Amino acid sequence: MAFLFQSISGSVTAPLGFRASGVYCDVKRLGTGKGSNKTVDLDMALIAADEPCAIAGLFTTNQVCAAPVKRCLEQIKDGKGQAIVVNSGNANACTGDRGKNDAATMASETAKHMKINPDHVYVASTGRIGLPLPMPNIKRGIRASVAALGTGEKEARAAAEAIMTSDTHPKEFAVEISTPTGPIRIGGIAKGAGMIDPLMTPDGKPPGPRELHATMLSFLTTDVSISQSMLQQALTVAVNGSFNSVTVDGDMSTNDTVLIMANGRAGNAEIKSTRSALFKVFQEGLSQVCVELAKMMVRDGEGASKFVTLRVSGAKTDADARAAGRAVANSLLVKTSWCGGDPNWGRILDALGYSSARIVEESVDVAYSAPGSEKRVYSLRGGRPTRVTFKRLCAEVARDEFDLHIHLNLGKGQAVIHTCDLTEEYVDFNKGDLSNPAALGG
Amino acid sequence: MAFLFQSISGSVTAPLGFRASGVYCDVKRLGTGKGSNKTVDLDMALIAADEPCAIAGLFTTNQVCAAPVKRCLEQIKDGKGQAIVVNSGNANACTGDRGKNDAATMASETAKHMKINPDHVYVASTGRIGLPLPMPNIKRGIRASVAALGTGEKEARAAAEAIMTSDTHPKEFAVEISTPTGPIRIGGIAKGAGMIDPLMTPDGKPPGPRELHATMLSFLTTDVSISQSMLQQALTVAVNGSFNSVTVDGDMSTNDTVLIMANGRAGNAEIKSTRSALFKVFQEGLSQVCVELAKMMVRDGEGASKFVTLRVSGAKTDADARAAGRAVANSLLVKTSWCGGDPNWGRILDALGYSSARIVEESVDVAYSAPGSEKRVYSLRGGRPTRVTFKRLCAEVARDEFDLHIHLNLGKGQAVIHTCDLTEEYVDFNKGDLSNPAALGG
Repeated sequence: MAFLFQSISGSVTAPLGFRASGVYCDVKRLGTGKGSNKTVDLDMALIAADEPCAIAGLFTTNQVCAAPVKRCLEQIKDGKGQAIVVNSGNANACTGDRGKNDAATMASETAKHMKINPDHVYVASTGRIGLPLPMPNIKRGIRASVAALGTGEKEARAAAEAIMTSDTHPKEFAVEISTPTGPIRIGGIAKGAGMIDPLMTPDGKPPGPRELHATMLSFLTTDVSISQSMLQQALTVAVNGSFNSVTVDGDMSTNDTVLIMANGRAGNAEIKSTRSALFKVFQEGLSQVCVELAKMMVRDGEGASKFVTLRVSGAKTDADARAAGRAVANSLLVKTSWCGGDPNWGRILDALGYSSARIVEESVDVAYSAPGSEKRVYSLRGGRPTRVTFKRLCAEVARDEFDLHIHLNLGKGQAVIHTCDLTEEYVDFNKGDLSNPAALGG
Repeated sequence: MAFLFQSISGSVTAPLGFRASGVYCDVKRLGTGKGSNKTVDLDMALIAADEPCAIAGLFTTNQVCAAPVKRCLEQIKDGKGQAIVVNSGNANACTGDRGKNDAATMASETAKHMKINPDHVYVASTGRIGLPLPMPNIKRGIRASVAALGTGEKEARAAAEAIMTSDTHPKEFAVEISTPTGPIRIGGIAKGAGMIDPLMTPDGKPPGPRELHATMLSFLTTDVSISQSMLQQALTVAVNGSFNSVTVDGDMSTNDTVLIMANGRAGNAEIKSTRSALFKVFQEGLSQVCVELAKMMVRDGEGASKFVTLRVSGAKTDADARAAGRAVANSLLVKTSWCGGDPNWGRILDALGYSSARIVEESVDVAYSAPGSEKRVYSLRGGRPTRVTFKRLCAEVARDEFDLHIHLNLGKGQAVIHTCDLTEEYVDFNKGDLSNPAALGG
C-alpha cells in the first residue's frame, strides 16, 4: 500500500465534519484596564463535530489541577465527545467548588445552544490562576461562539487565536494522508509560550518520578475512523514525542490539556488494532502534527531568541537520556549562555553531572549542527575539549536554531528535547505589572 | 553548665593556632585582557594549622567533579590535615589526568614551602571549567601565600577575598563559645554567588534521588578538641542545615567543597560522643557559622535583589518539605514574580503541585512575614485566597528580605530553604562576554 503525507493549510476544520469558531467575550482583558480590541483579543474558542465521535486526551500531572481538567479526567472515561469549548484569560484553577460548577456550566451552556448532550462537551481554560470565571461574559461568549461556528480556515484560525495568552501568534498545522481507501486528514491548534514544561498522561497521574515541567493546550481533529482505545494510544505516543518533550522554563502548568476528536468521516474501515497498517500511518501523521505544534510553542517561548533541539543518545536507558537532556534544557546557566551565543561546554557537562542520569565524564561527546543536519562540529570528545576553535563553536551557537548532540557512550538510550534560551525579556515579561494586578497571571 | 555564644570579628584565624593568607598570582584575570589589580584580584588563599589536626569535609555530588575534589575525597579517609590551599579563576574541572597531576602538585608545592606532609594539604579550586591550570603562576602564588601567612584578621580577610569569583564581597563569620573549661572558637570563610545549589555529602555520593543544585566553597577552623568522626558528623549536620539548604539558580557545581580543621588548642577534653554536652554546644556554634555564611552567599546571589527564606511545614515527611520548598525556590516564574514584587500565589501553588512532595490543594496555607517574625500575613488558607488585599500582600513582597511560610497540613515534615529572586541582571551577567572568551566561566 502506498501512503502519501502532505501538509495542508488550515487546522481543526481541515478534516471533514468539523466546525470551529473564535469570539471575543471580554475575559482576557477583563479588569486589566487595557482597552479591548475585538479583533486581536478573541478569548473563547469552540471546536465542534457534526455528531458524537471518539475522543481521547492527556492532562497535566500537576497535583494542583484546574477545575476543567478535573472535569475532563472524569469524562474521558466514556470516550465520547462532540465539542470542545475553551476560554483564555482565566485558568479557572484554584477556584474551589465554584470553579467546578463554572466548568460544568460552560459545558451545559454549550450543549444547550448546540442542542447536544452536555456530557459530550469538553471544557478547557488558560490564563490567570485563582480568579473566579466572569460567568456572564463566558455565557455571552458561548452563545456567540456557537453562532459563529463554520467549516472554513478563517474560523479555525479564529479558534487558534482565541486560545492564545502570552503567545505572539496562533499555532496551526494539518496534514493529509492519501490512502488506497481515500484521504484522511489530521489538524490541530495549540497555545503556550510560558509556564511550559508539560508532562501529561491519560489519567493525570505521573508515569514515574515527577519531573519539573509549564500552560499548554492543543486541540486536534481527524476524520479517520478509529476506536477510542486506539485513538488514545496514538495520542499518548504522539504527545510523549512532542508536547511532553519541550520545555521553556521548567514550570508545569495546572491546566495542560491535549484533546483529539475522531469522527470517522474519511470512511476507512475502523482502526481497531495497532497492527493495522493504517494505524501506523495515522500514528505517523498525528505525531507529525503534534511535533510541529510543539516546535511552534518553543519558538514562541516568552522572550526566547533561540530554538535548540537537544539530541541525547548513548544513555543507559531512554529515561536516563531524557533526564540528562532535561537537566541541560532547564539549566539557567546553559540557557543564559545560549542567549549570549556562548558555546560553554563546561556548563553543559556540569548540568549532565547533576542530572539523575548515569554519566561518565570521560565518555561524554558534545557536538553542534544545523537543525537536522548530520554534519557535526564537536566541542567535546571523551569529556575533553576538541581542537575546534572557540570562534568556530561560536558560529554554531550564533544560529537562531541549532541542534545540540550529547552522546553519553554508555548504552542505547535516546531522547529528543526542544527548548529555548533564557533572556532578559523572559524576566521582564514575568516580573509582571504591579500597577495592573488583574494582568498578573499564573 | 552555662554556655555563652557570641559572634566575634574575623574568621579562620579567630581560633587559636591557625594562620591564613591571600595573594595575587594572576590566575583570575589570566587571558581576560583585563588589567590586573593586585589589591582586588587576590586569587590564591592558604589556611594553615600549626600542627596536623582533625579535618572533615563535604563534597559536591555532581558526577562531573573537579580534580581537587577527587583528591579531597581520597584524602579525607585519613582524617588528618594541616593546610588548605585554594585558587580562584580556574576550577581545574574537566581537565583529565593533567588536572589530577596539577592538584597533586599544588599540594606538594605547598608542603615543600611549609615543610609539612603533602598528604596533609587539601586543595580546592573555583572558576572556569575545562582550562588547564597555569602552573607557573600557581607555583608562584603558593610560594607567596606561604610567605604571607599570618594570624591576623587582615590575613583571614585576604584569604576570604582570594577565593571570590563573581562574589561582590568577601564572606566571613566567627563565634566564640564560653564554656566552663574556657572559650572555644569557630571561624569560617565562604564564596559563591552563582551556580549555587549545593548538595554535598561526605563521600560525594547523593543521599537519595539526585536534586538539581551551584560553585560554593567554605573553609572553617576551630580550636575545639574533637575526634575526626565527631567533627565529620557535626559538619554534615551543619552543612545540611545551611549550604545544602540554599539555592540561587538550581545549578550544582563540579567543585562544591566545605572543609573544617579542628586543632584542639582550646584545651577541652576531646569530644568523642554526640552525647557530650560540649558536642551539642559545638554543633550549635558550627551550625550558626555555616548558616550565616550560607545566607551571605544567597544575599550576594548574582543579580539578586531579594533574599527569601522559605519555611515549609506540615509536609508528610522532611524530604517532602524539602522537595516542596525546592520546587518553589527554583521556579523561574516564582523567582521572577519576586523580582517584580508580585505576591503571585498561583505560581507558588503551581510549583508545589509539580514537586515530588505530596500536596492537597485544598490544604495549603501560604503566608508572608518579616524575617524571623511570627506575625504572618496569609495570602492563601486551605488553598483559597484570603481577604487580605493585593496591596497589603505587595507590601510584604516589597521587602528586601522576607519569609515565605508554606504549611501543607499533611504531617510533621519541615524544611527551611534560603533563596533569592531572578532578575534581568542575572541573565545579563551569565550571558557572558563573547569578546572575551577567557572570561566565560563555568
